[in-house]
Amino acid sequence: MLPDLQSLVPSTRRRRTLAVYLVMSLGALGIYLAIRARGEGLSAPAASTTDAPIPGEHAGQLAHVLLALAVITALARLMGGFVNRFLRQPPVIGEILAGLMLGPSLLGSVWPEGYQFLLPSDVAPFLGVISKVGVVLFMFLVGLELDPRLLRGSAHSTIAVSHASIFVPFLMGAGLALWLYPVYATSAVSFTSFSLFLGVSLSVTAFPVLARILRDRRAQRTRLGATALACAAIDDVSAWTLLAIVAGIATAQLSGAAWTVLYVALYVLVMLFAVGPLLKRFFVEREQAREGPLSHSALATVFVSLLLSAVATEAIGIHALFGAFLLGAVLPHDGRLAEQIRAKLEDVVLVLFLPSFFVFTGMRTSIDLLGDSRDWLFCLAIIGVATLGKFGGSFVAARIAGMGWRHSAALGILMNTRGLMELIVLNLGLDLGVITPTVFTMMVFMALATTFMTTPLLDLLLGRRGFADSSEAPVAARQRGGVG
Amino acid sequence: MLPDLQSLVPSTRRRRTLAVYLVMSLGALGIYLAIRARGEGLSAPAASTTDAPIPGEHAGQLAHVLLALAVITALARLMGGFVNRFLRQPPVIGEILAGLMLGPSLLGSVWPEGYQFLLPSDVAPFLGVISKVGVVLFMFLVGLELDPRLLRGSAHSTIAVSHASIFVPFLMGAGLALWLYPVYATSAVSFTSFSLFLGVSLSVTAFPVLARILRDRRAQRTRLGATALACAAIDDVSAWTLLAIVAGIATAQLSGAAWTVLYVALYVLVMLFAVGPLLKRFFVEREQAREGPLSHSALATVFVSLLLSAVATEAIGIHALFGAFLLGAVLPHDGRLAEQIRAKLEDVVLVLFLPSFFVFTGMRTSIDLLGDSRDWLFCLAIIGVATLGKFGGSFVAARIAGMGWRHSAALGILMNTRGLMELIVLNLGLDLGVITPTVFTMMVFMALATTFMTTPLLDLLLGRRGFADSSEAPVAARQRGGVG
Repeated sequence: MLPDLQSLVPSTRRRRTLAVYLVMSLGALGIYLAIRARGEGLSAPAASTTDAPIPGEHAGQLAHVLLALAVITALARLMGGFVNRFLRQPPVIGEILAGLMLGPSLLGSVWPEGYQFLLPSDVAPFLGVISKVGVVLFMFLVGLELDPRLLRGSAHSTIAVSHASIFVPFLMGAGLALWLYPVYATSAVSFTSFSLFLGVSLSVTAFPVLARILRDRRAQRTRLGATALACAAIDDVSAWTLLAIVAGIATAQLSGAAWTVLYVALYVLVMLFAVGPLLKRFFVEREQAREGPLSHSALATVFVSLLLSAVATEAIGIHALFGAFLLGAVLPHDGRLAEQIRAKLEDVVLVLFLPSFFVFTGMRTSIDLLGDSRDWLFCLAIIGVATLGKFGGSFVAARIAGMGWRHSAALGILMNTRGLMELIVLNLGLDLGVITPTVFTMMVFMALATTFMTTPLLDLLLGRRGFADSSEAPVAARQRGGVG
Repeated sequence: MLPDLQSLVPSTRRRRTLAVYLVMSLGALGIYLAIRARGEGLSAPAASTTDAPIPGEHAGQLAHVLLALAVITALARLMGGFVNRFLRQPPVIGEILAGLMLGPSLLGSVWPEGYQFLLPSDVAPFLGVISKVGVVLFMFLVGLELDPRLLRGSAHSTIAVSHASIFVPFLMGAGLALWLYPVYATSAVSFTSFSLFLGVSLSVTAFPVLARILRDRRAQRTRLGATALACAAIDDVSAWTLLAIVAGIATAQLSGAAWTVLYVALYVLVMLFAVGPLLKRFFVEREQAREGPLSHSALATVFVSLLLSAVATEAIGIHALFGAFLLGAVLPHDGRLAEQIRAKLEDVVLVLFLPSFFVFTGMRTSIDLLGDSRDWLFCLAIIGVATLGKFGGSFVAARIAGMGWRHSAALGILMNTRGLMELIVLNLGLDLGVITPTVFTMMVFMALATTFMTTPLLDLLLGRRGFADSSEAPVAARQRGGVG
């Protein structure tokens, strides 16, 4: 829409057109003014209160939401690019840091007015819902990427390592609760909920971040890479199952918990044996037999199923995330449909939705809450126990299963990556009231620290590129910013 | 993830693995129970109020938002498909009907409890923000599709028709205000705002719906089709300019209006002569020179620019929609980047976001407000004046410009299509308080009626397929559900 200078020089015909236009405009203006002169004398009925429109939102709220989204998206990209280029860290680290920077920890304490303007408290609920819808879509994509073949028929070592890498940190986390509970829990939460949650949150491995790190090193198809991915997948599924149980126990009162667990089990069975096969038979296969791009109806079918599955899990009493994840998992992870859904959703979710989740996490994280040295000692203890449990459990199990010590260590380091998944789990715990903001803040630091240490430790251990047993040609790394 | 029956039959190795797993699980359970037994005796500090987490949203709100989105998406698809297949109407008609069905007009009066459950009033603001973000993205896409070549160097007839098709309905709408203002306006709104708004809203043509109808008839490259598209584009730009002025006048008090108009003019100039060229030079050209798919950074750049432009127009005092539209308009509408952005955004916006806008519109439309026969007479009058002004103005101008009578009539019918754009304008008017819910309801019916009559009238006039002067080979209609 750059003005064409030549077109501004009037030709005879242009001049005539211009004249017609002017006459019409002036004529219209004249007529309008005549109408207005008559109308000015009219009086309208007084405003009635029953006739008030449905409030869309307060004036300026939309502007605030849009502004917040703009700033969040921009800063998350900048920081993600920065840590990726200069610190060789996965972008998710930068995006979480961007969230902390925009939260009360930095912006809120350095420039409170700016914080209040950018993220006023009445905008927080909107940001919360947008970020949660984003995470629901993201978990669906994670489920969609899950390869069930990773979960079965794996090597003996994979099964040993994955079990050890869940049980050891889980028990160490539950044990840690003995010290944390009297100091940082609230009496509204039972020790059972608290300790189960702590155990689960220490045994999470970030499947997406792991996949991204392996992809960057072109190692996802090496034996070590495949083992790590399979272990992470098994860990994720197990951790989410445990978390569903914790959510059930935390939400329901004692006797209700059993029902919740029963409902969850029923729901999973229905999804696996009814919804999955039905979708496959009547939707996926038809859709994939059809030529051409993804139809709107197919996209709508996927959206609606995913939303309904999410609502169902919320209704049961666990979180919408589980339903979205499970729907993704029962859809075939390969094939044209999955590819097309990913092509439509992945980038928009990663660029536009997910950063608000990090910022929302950052807004709930406050360094102020770690007031004295005891708090910081506990925070360090959590980081230490998390690392020791995850790394140690995986390392020992891999050694027992017969892997070499370097690869066992590398596997342990990889499994210690927590990243985005940990933040999702933590927000869930905070929403459920199982952990307090103080514990939340400590755990966010743990998630950052364990994710941050992965790359340098791997560099130390294996060198910048090396996965020594890589027998296959390196696969071209995807040219993308990458899943968090 | 269908269970493989064979894998359930244990082999020796599987049995060993199972045994290891059982021992580990039971061991872990035992250890956990020991920890729990110790922990049960502990007591946690009482819940402190200062330690309360940032409220994400009320419990269940996310579930309600997700459920509403699921129902909305599903019903909009169903109705859109229904009217498209059985009534040969553009899907947007069905989507608006779905909105009315879910609103107080049908669901709310037939089954109030269901309505309250599906769309409780505390969910409305979230739906409002989501639908508005959706419309902002949609207007960006409309701007992106705008071909500036349509706006200049057009044939004489195009210019005449487009001017007439704005001025005539505008003046008739403003004239109609003389009768409507004393009955349906409120004293809080000046006659000037009211009459300008009525004029603008009668002169809107739905560029996207028009494009869709022409595409369905494979007529977008015929002379009649090209003229209609060019006129609609000019109409849209003019109507939005007028609307920005109306918004400025309605928001600001008398003297402030002049400033608003000045700011708007400045903003448009900055976008056209600074932001557009800069983006083109430093972003679009680089991005298009690069190989491979759209990068995350490029997508983020587009999002952030679009959001900031939207925020800027909100700050000026007109609506975020203008900023989004203008950013789309200053980006090159052809070329690889536009194609990639459309591929990423269009389907998601159309399927997931836009239906909530229709439902939100439907929720604000209430047949109850048209209580007596006078209201219905006024409603019919609006429909009549709208049709007469738009059809008559275009028809007469086309005849004067030398087009044949059948094509002149066809052009008039096409220009009378209002569809989605009208709804956007109406919601804006309701948000600004320029029109009351009663006038809003009448105008929604007008938008539906004028859009609905387009296809049958064209069929009557030209036959089911015919654009008689089609000299070019029909272009394959795009295999998609279509822009509303």
